Amino acid sequence: MAGNTFGKLFRVTTWGESHGTAVGAVIDGCPPGIPLSTEDIKRDMERRRPGKGGTTSPRKEPDKVEILSGIFEGKTTGTPISLVIYNKDAQSNAYKHLENIFRPGHGDITYLKKYGIRDHRGGGRASARETAARVAAGAVARQILGLENIIVSAYTIVLGGIEATKREFPEILDNRLYCPDNEAAAHMEERIAEVRRQGDSLGGIVEVRATGSLAGLGEPVFEKLDAALAQALMSIGAVKGVEIGAGFAAAGMLGSENNDAITPTGFETNNAGGILAGIANGDDIIARVAVKPIPSIGLEQNTLNLDREPVKIKIGGRHDISAIPRIIPVCEAMVCLTLADHFLRQKAIEN
Amino acid sequence: MAGNTFGKLFRVTTWGESHGTAVGAVIDGCPPGIPLSTEDIKRDMERRRPGKGGTTSPRKEPDKVEILSGIFEGKTTGTPISLVIYNKDAQSNAYKHLENIFRPGHGDITYLKKYGIRDHRGGGRASARETAARVAAGAVARQILGLENIIVSAYTIVLGGIEATKREFPEILDNRLYCPDNEAAAHMEERIAEVRRQGDSLGGIVEVRATGSLAGLGEPVFEKLDAALAQALMSIGAVKGVEIGAGFAAAGMLGSENNDAITPTGFETNNAGGILAGIANGDDIIARVAVKPIPSIGLEQNTLNLDREPVKIKIGGRHDISAIPRIIPVCEAMVCLTLADHFLRQKAIEN
Amino acid sequence: MAGNTFGKLFRVTTWGESHGTAVGAVIDGCPPGIPLSTEDIKRDMERRRPGKGGTTSPRKEPDKVEILSGIFEGKTTGTPISLVIYNKDAQSNAYKHLENIFRPGHGDITYLKKYGIRDHRGGGRASARETAARVAAGAVARQILGLENIIVSAYTIVLGGIEATKREFPEILDNRLYCPDNEAAAHMEERIAEVRRQGDSLGGIVEVRATGSLAGLGEPVFEKLDAALAQALMSIGAVKGVEIGAGFAAAGMLGSENNDAITPTGFETNNAGGILAGIANGDDIIARVAVKPIPSIGLEQNTLNLDREPVKIKIGGRHDISAIPRIIPVCEAMVCLTLADHFLRQKAIEN
Amino acid sequence: MAGNTFGKLFRVTTWGESHGTAVGAVIDGCPPGIPLSTEDIKRDMERRRPGKGGTTSPRKEPDKVEILSGIFEGKTTGTPISLVIYNKDAQSNAYKHLENIFRPGHGDITYLKKYGIRDHRGGGRASARETAARVAAGAVARQILGLENIIVSAYTIVLGGIEATKREFPEILDNRLYCPDNEAAAHMEERIAEVRRQGDSLGGIVEVRATGSLAGLGEPVFEKLDAALAQALMSIGAVKGVEIGAGFAAAGMLGSENNDAITPTGFETNNAGGILAGIANGDDIIARVAVKPIPSIGLEQNTLNLDREPVKIKIGGRHDISAIPRIIPVCEAMVCLTLADHFLRQKAIEN
Repeated sequence: MAGNTFGKLFRVTTWGESHGTAVGAVIDGCPPGIPLSTEDIKRDMERRRPGKGGTTSPRKEPDKVEILSGIFEGKTTGTPISLVIYNKDAQSNAYKHLENIFRPGHGDITYLKKYGIRDHRGGGRASARETAARVAAGAVARQILGLENIIVSAYTIVLGGIEATKREFPEILDNRLYCPDNEAAAHMEERIAEVRRQGDSLGGIVEVRATGSLAGLGEPVFEKLDAALAQALMSIGAVKGVEIGAGFAAAGMLGSENNDAITPTGFETNNAGGILAGIANGDDIIARVAVKPIPSIGLEQNTLNLDREPVKIKIGGRHDISAIPRIIPVCEAMVCLTLADHFLRQKAIEN
Repeated sequence: MAGNTFGKLFRVTTWGESHGTAVGAVIDGCPPGIPLSTEDIKRDMERRRPGKGGTTSPRKEPDKVEILSGIFEGKTTGTPISLVIYNKDAQSNAYKHLENIFRPGHGDITYLKKYGIRDHRGGGRASARETAARVAAGAVARQILGLENIIVSAYTIVLGGIEATKREFPEILDNRLYCPDNEAAAHMEERIAEVRRQGDSLGGIVEVRATGSLAGLGEPVFEKLDAALAQALMSIGAVKGVEIGAGFAAAGMLGSENNDAITPTGFETNNAGGILAGIANGDDIIARVAVKPIPSIGLEQNTLNLDREPVKIKIGGRHDISAIPRIIPVCEAMVCLTLADHFLRQKAIEN
Repeated sequence: MAGNTFGKLFRVTTWGESHGTAVGAVIDGCPPGIPLSTEDIKRDMERRRPGKGGTTSPRKEPDKVEILSGIFEGKTTGTPISLVIYNKDAQSNAYKHLENIFRPGHGDITYLKKYGIRDHRGGGRASARETAARVAAGAVARQILGLENIIVSAYTIVLGGIEATKREFPEILDNRLYCPDNEAAAHMEERIAEVRRQGDSLGGIVEVRATGSLAGLGEPVFEKLDAALAQALMSIGAVKGVEIGAGFAAAGMLGSENNDAITPTGFETNNAGGILAGIANGDDIIARVAVKPIPSIGLEQNTLNLDREPVKIKIGGRHDISAIPRIIPVCEAMVCLTLADHFLRQKAIEN
Repeated sequence: MAGNTFGKLFRVTTWGESHGTAVGAVIDGCPPGIPLSTEDIKRDMERRRPGKGGTTSPRKEPDKVEILSGIFEGKTTGTPISLVIYNKDAQSNAYKHLENIFRPGHGDITYLKKYGIRDHRGGGRASARETAARVAAGAVARQILGLENIIVSAYTIVLGGIEATKREFPEILDNRLYCPDNEAAAHMEERIAEVRRQGDSLGGIVEVRATGSLAGLGEPVFEKLDAALAQALMSIGAVKGVEIGAGFAAAGMLGSENNDAITPTGFETNNAGGILAGIANGDDIIARVAVKPIPSIGLEQNTLNLDREPVKIKIGGRHDISAIPRIIPVCEAMVCLTLADHFLRQKAIEN
């Protein structure tokens, strides 16, 4: 059973290769009567779009999302919503020299092992281009959550080893890195510039926060809300770790430190990250994801060609230095998809 | 859609409450002809069993697994395998005084928010008792993996802030904590003893490793192998974080440090943790999970009663100091279940 | 992916072999707060029970259903409900002589072809004994439907070629065959007696009717309500055909005859059987199933043994003459399971 | 959970409205390495295409299928295959006068009851236009089956009360109705002409036959092959009944007549329709579907408008007299999708 569908009630199936004709998503299970237009999707697409600045890939894609079905007079009808984004600027020739080589850190070698055939052009299905479809679908989920007063936002808290030391959320919009600490953001930019000159790349950490009417969401025992979020976020290409609330720090705490005391006005702390026993407790949901450095680098690396002979590789072409900040709307999209799905699941059993 | 089923082709549905009649699992999709007896399940059950030593809860459960269906003359038949473990030593009275109170760090409050009704006895469905069924089912998955030469093992690498500084795998069997560093294990035991005296509890980190014929497993893009493992492991009660390979450390690396160079004899390093683009690359799969401290502690905590009035609570009763080491066979079980499922999924599309 | 789970939101997984230790079902997704006791299940179990009269098998099973989980103080909790029915009167020796032979009309040969291994005792998983678990689970679904004023009943309309010429529903309880036409029922009994003397068996037709707040149920386009019912009913062992409303007769009608005119007080006719475009229109849902004659007969038949050599077979033992009337509560159960599932699915998208 | 996905391993999600921008399908789970081009899809699309002859609707759609993803150098890659068919000749104005009226026999009233909103243009999602996507996806399934030597064909056996009295399969290609009896076909055409003059419409019966390496397919107990086929076929708009093998006739047989004796060279008869206990026995699979008359007729009918007031309606516009023969490739497609799915499911558990 292939894995291109996400969600149980709000189900999204994405399709498409980096250098194919188009990428897209079909949403099945969106409730009827939700206002939706391409404008609602545009804002998130803009943030994911390549070519926005120094950190980002110069591939120029308008990323215009077309809604082919499921909408009538500005509202969803309950039937499947088909979203398509045609690829306009796929320069497959730029990848021609990589056709017979496995790029380290990429899926070239594993796709071939798994399927015995591989669309090498621009990474094919394994390309981050696929996330355009996730972001488009996530925007639909966000419409549903908006009606329930649920807000999801992601932001950079570490990049290239530089940490944001505060969470001044208004500052997220002040800098290109969506960092809630303008000063840290400036340092991150310096680090990016430095690493770019070296032909290398950087990783970082993104935090995602959801607020609003979340209490009760989550389906024990295998689809607990934290488990669902872990799957959702780990399914993003560059992500190598996911933690909820105190996360790995909780491993070093005493029970008396980690437990969130309960008071008539709410929890005293939020080490739980808003989730207890897999169910949202109503506090903010907080997740963090570890983003590995972009594997495509200009420095020379050892690898193999298709004949399994050792070769050297230097990757030029149009690449980002870091998956951050473009990964930020993708993280938000995956959390929106997860929450919308669990919201419908909860509705099904509530009185 | 409730979340008590794990897997798509090798599907496990668990059921049962801590102080109900029994807990159990139904496995649907186990291939026919796999040798299976209760003996094959017993070893893993033993390791999960309460009452094994100083760290662990004195609840005495024989944890005898009965196989009610799906086996004929010592082999699986392809029909559903029903496993049941009757609860013998459920002392619900010990929980009577907690009936009207929300224990901090537990699911008491969220189960009530979600369902509007709650089996308070021993944590009900949210109890770690539920994992007995996971371990039993995981043992069946392990039988399948064994035929494919795939081995899964978990071990303690941090407990109460004490780190294992080596991976001497034979030492795992030398100490009660399944730690691959006997010296560290001794320090961990001291820390446990100290914290026990304080009435507090401890967290830690468990590492899981899978070796063998793994290449090709994983279903992009939402059920990548790392995403599936993240869901599987995060679905365990005490887990607050999951990372693969270099994990959160990758966030601080350069691309040139993090990329695993490819050579004719394999990968030079394993920062990927055996997974590239969501598909196993054939190298060892390595995952780590952050385990929070046991929330049931003897120290006084602030909380609410069912009337939402502030009360103080001290939890006595039969509790572990740490979910480690009992969580170790549970981590293994979840990884076995994930790999067995993905193994069958890969078989379905292979020539 | 094995097929022992039915439903998407109200999910039932059955397990168990005819002559194994037990049969059972796990229900995942039952909403919390539904009153449920073993008494609620007993009535349906009684009607399915063997040994009730002349048509029926003399196997004596008390068919006592135990609820092992998911209930607290007389109500469902939203966690999985595990139902188990231990087999008491499995006389495997009676089947010993059939161990090496393929019974015509049974699954002996196909189970072996599919799985390469076969629990021959009493038909194993292919036995009608499996339907005990369906009926138990169906009784839980019926509790949910009852709260929504939905009533499901099945009855015999043809047996051994004798047709019920009226639908006097109160008469259903007057005769052992659940036939809404006492006179026809008497003729059916005569036919049964006659065929029993010949060592042969009989088929028939069962009609199922659902009434109540059904409008809106059904999920186009592949899980339309009629499609879901067709799967549900055809999954019962002896069923070879399913029709909705006018069914096969519609094939011979003109559009002007078949269309149900719409009036302010409802539909003028019900050729649609209560379903239009896969969605319940609020009228009674009517389905009919063709039940083949019991394949186990006392007359001599040609078949093969395990070595594929031709042999003759006469089947004695404890067999019904017709799957009717014991199939009637099974038909009801499958319709109840389908409607409960679709009821929850509709709740998930409704405002 | 919405119902626009069919299959478990070979999964097809269709989308699109009759008068929207396009209809389409996404196939997830197609094995890699299957040869596939638009030419392979074209033949089936041609047979479903409107405007082919006297019985059929004059809507002119080229029905050109575009493959947007999942193919590389003429073969499937194992990634999702996105198929799109743009609507070219949607004359929504022709439906303007029906905007406020419920057409008898159509889903107008039920879609509104279910979703509270309705795309009235040409029937929206409930239109037979949706089956174009099924046929396109079915053609991909047929490619897989072809490699396994499995052939699926459907043909008309009753139309307007005229029965085919023979099964001369070569004659299927001789007449426009795909009837294996040219003489009967001629009578059917006369009946069509007659009914057309009356402004009425006709139903009929289609038989589907699958041959080849089928033994072992089917997943007891709820997704038995006959149950899966029943769902698949009943999900087609005009279908009101499905039977397998002897079907409803089996209800009138004795066990000794209905049982298919087993001989060293195969089954003596095929009343089972190739399926025993839900698993293919290797003999031809035979299913029949009852097709209701097209509900859109020129004769005056009683119905309601949106204000629930009684009105008269006569439906002109571009309509078929019978869903036959255009439903024939749709029936084949649904059987191909079912068999391809079950073929992969069987592969997953086989040694």
